[in-house]
Amino acid sequence: MIGTELGDLRRTHYSTELNSLNEGTDVTVMGWVVTVRGHGNIVFATIRDKLGNIQVITKSGECEDDIREKLSHLKEHSSIAVVGKTRKNEKSPTGIEIVPSEMRVFSEVEKIPPFEPYAKTVKNIDTRLEVRAIDLRRNVLQKIFLARSVTLRALRDYLGKEDFVEVNTPKMIATATEGGAALFPIFYYNKEAFLAQSPQLYKEQMTIGLERVFEISSFYRAEKSHTGRHLSEFTSVDIEAAMMDYTDVMDVLESIVVDVFKNTAENSKTEQKEIGHEIRIPDSPFERVSYTQALDELGKMDIKLEFGEDLQDSHLRSLGEKHPGFFFLTDWPMKLKPFYIHEKDDDPTLSRSFDLQYGYLELSSGGRRLHDPEQLKSRLKEQNLDPTSFEEHLKTFGWGMPPHSGWGMGLDRLMTVLIGIDNVREVVLYPRDPDRLKP
Amino acid sequence: MIGTELGDLRRTHYSTELNSLNEGTDVTVMGWVVTVRGHGNIVFATIRDKLGNIQVITKSGECEDDIREKLSHLKEHSSIAVVGKTRKNEKSPTGIEIVPSEMRVFSEVEKIPPFEPYAKTVKNIDTRLEVRAIDLRRNVLQKIFLARSVTLRALRDYLGKEDFVEVNTPKMIATATEGGAALFPIFYYNKEAFLAQSPQLYKEQMTIGLERVFEISSFYRAEKSHTGRHLSEFTSVDIEAAMMDYTDVMDVLESIVVDVFKNTAENSKTEQKEIGHEIRIPDSPFERVSYTQALDELGKMDIKLEFGEDLQDSHLRSLGEKHPGFFFLTDWPMKLKPFYIHEKDDDPTLSRSFDLQYGYLELSSGGRRLHDPEQLKSRLKEQNLDPTSFEEHLKTFGWGMPPHSGWGMGLDRLMTVLIGIDNVREVVLYPRDPDRLKP
Repeated sequence: MIGTELGDLRRTHYSTELNSLNEGTDVTVMGWVVTVRGHGNIVFATIRDKLGNIQVITKSGECEDDIREKLSHLKEHSSIAVVGKTRKNEKSPTGIEIVPSEMRVFSEVEKIPPFEPYAKTVKNIDTRLEVRAIDLRRNVLQKIFLARSVTLRALRDYLGKEDFVEVNTPKMIATATEGGAALFPIFYYNKEAFLAQSPQLYKEQMTIGLERVFEISSFYRAEKSHTGRHLSEFTSVDIEAAMMDYTDVMDVLESIVVDVFKNTAENSKTEQKEIGHEIRIPDSPFERVSYTQALDELGKMDIKLEFGEDLQDSHLRSLGEKHPGFFFLTDWPMKLKPFYIHEKDDDPTLSRSFDLQYGYLELSSGGRRLHDPEQLKSRLKEQNLDPTSFEEHLKTFGWGMPPHSGWGMGLDRLMTVLIGIDNVREVVLYPRDPDRLKP
Repeated sequence: MIGTELGDLRRTHYSTELNSLNEGTDVTVMGWVVTVRGHGNIVFATIRDKLGNIQVITKSGECEDDIREKLSHLKEHSSIAVVGKTRKNEKSPTGIEIVPSEMRVFSEVEKIPPFEPYAKTVKNIDTRLEVRAIDLRRNVLQKIFLARSVTLRALRDYLGKEDFVEVNTPKMIATATEGGAALFPIFYYNKEAFLAQSPQLYKEQMTIGLERVFEISSFYRAEKSHTGRHLSEFTSVDIEAAMMDYTDVMDVLESIVVDVFKNTAENSKTEQKEIGHEIRIPDSPFERVSYTQALDELGKMDIKLEFGEDLQDSHLRSLGEKHPGFFFLTDWPMKLKPFYIHEKDDDPTLSRSFDLQYGYLELSSGGRRLHDPEQLKSRLKEQNLDPTSFEEHLKTFGWGMPPHSGWGMGLDRLMTVLIGIDNVREVVLYPRDPDRLKP
């Protein structure tokens, strides 16, 4: 009889641990059926756990007939456990095969999956997103999310070493942080509220007590963009630091990007092989191009822009061709920047601000912030924002706000660069966009 | 002239690094004024950075008069930088004082703060929450959030070592995960959506590909509770693992709690001293009390409950007196559990489920989940939920869902136990409850 219950059975080895075992070792492996090939009295099956493949052989006389019989009818994806002994076999991909003495079938698959689950590529991403969990059975996809997990760890390790304290800011907020555009409204009991698009005001406030803070969390932007780089819900890496100017936090950003590329490259060698992309450690220092220089460079390409005009996607693509890797775009005009950004001393029309670009792709935005409450109040008015909506925030600035700077970086975009893929939907488990709220 | 700009000046040493320096070392320190004491031609000031205090001395003839003059008028909280030389002084708390050659005042405080910022205790938590950033200037508060940061790191390190992959699930969802109660509605473009109260369905789905996943993130519950342990936005630690039963994930939970207590105790010695609470490593194994045993125990205290009745706060308090530390409450009646929980083999009225309690306080809830799509569908109907609302979720279960188990733990509650404090608002930076949406 073939069992169907987990009961007291537990996996003893992952696929990758098998080939170091002696012949004849008792093992229990668990995974999903990849292929079954029957040849009369011999049936081979490949099953797969999260680390790799395992070959199972059932031969008349060597194992019970009902196991061979059941195995021969199992469809791809069925979730099973095999108890048996190891045997060396040069023809098996791992050099080892398992001769079963017991088998349990936890989930027997009847239906044909919507796409070949072990395929390296599947053209239609929408089909895949509709059954994202099944998509995760594809090796490439698994490796992408393992690499993402490695990256998250590398980011936190770096910031921890640099004395940044991890914080959790609220995502349900009463006031629009940066002026009210593109917010998702919530019913908060009987009040109006919004989903936060960044931890901006909170992280600034906390520099007064914790000096250096960071947060890695989901944030929300109700933008009707249908590009490969915008999502309605995205993961942002945010830092803010007291006693630092914008050039200092640019240095932190440059170091963390290089460190994360190194670290992820080193700790995801298998993943890179399976994904088919080798992570290249970026050269540093990153080039630093000011907005004014960028206008000059564009001018030379016959793209004429007035000082103060924003750089559109097409302009960034032209600049990206000239600077194909990582580079900073710095010293943007004040009028293009949010109210909390600090001006430059030598030219108040310019700001102490920067974007980190990867070619045309904006990965991060940051700058020095105003710390004087009076300046902040006038800036709010200049930008037609109501200081009374920012009352709690401004209050904080009355008791010793230090000079401070920070940045926010889109983790999903960073992952596309790391993995060498051009759609953020590939590196987000369950993406949200104007057309997609499910699954 | 006393400068006000950060300019090129950078901190060379934190307070804690000063007493290992030779006399006469050039240093730049930055921080906030704690006290200023003037004695005619001598003015002492204590300034404070995130790690501790620094004594500054300005004496006629030793440093410029305008520095002494300015320092003598600075109010508490003003944010400043002092450039100078170190000198040994046994009367200084750190054994070192600084004789300034330059001073910059970044933020000069004029107003009187709403409470004594360096006080160990401030009675009214509402007053403090209204200016939370100022509250963070209190040493105790800083240490609480440093300890929280240490705990977050310990949790992730443990789960990483146990092969759990960190994931980010969506917080904007189309369907109520556990039946629709207590959800915050959102306007999602032109659709209705909700804020997730847990990553339940997503983490279950992902066991099919990633096997073991974890997430630490904010979740949302629109409950009009006004207790010291409920918040509308809370941080949850969630795990889910393929091929594990509920007893296995209970073991994981027990080990992680003990490990986190050990780790945080070790890495927050200063913090514990300042908070005035010594972290006690819990004894393991934790007691495991079944629901049926709990009814017996309550019966002996003359509290009579029928099988199937839920344990109310008063019952948990009685049980908590008998079991004052960590203990598991297991094998709850099926009818008290959400649709996805698996029944026991030997008694289908009981579930493979557990809560982790600390005395009366519920810290975590978890169990074995159903993995058979047909059982799941009937359970949804039994609980008057519409299977069509769970269509995407059920679809996933058709292609090899493994047996799986998991839990969710409230980080904020765990922190109250770690820190020895009884209100979650003490360990959350900007708490959200039915009455509090700001700051």
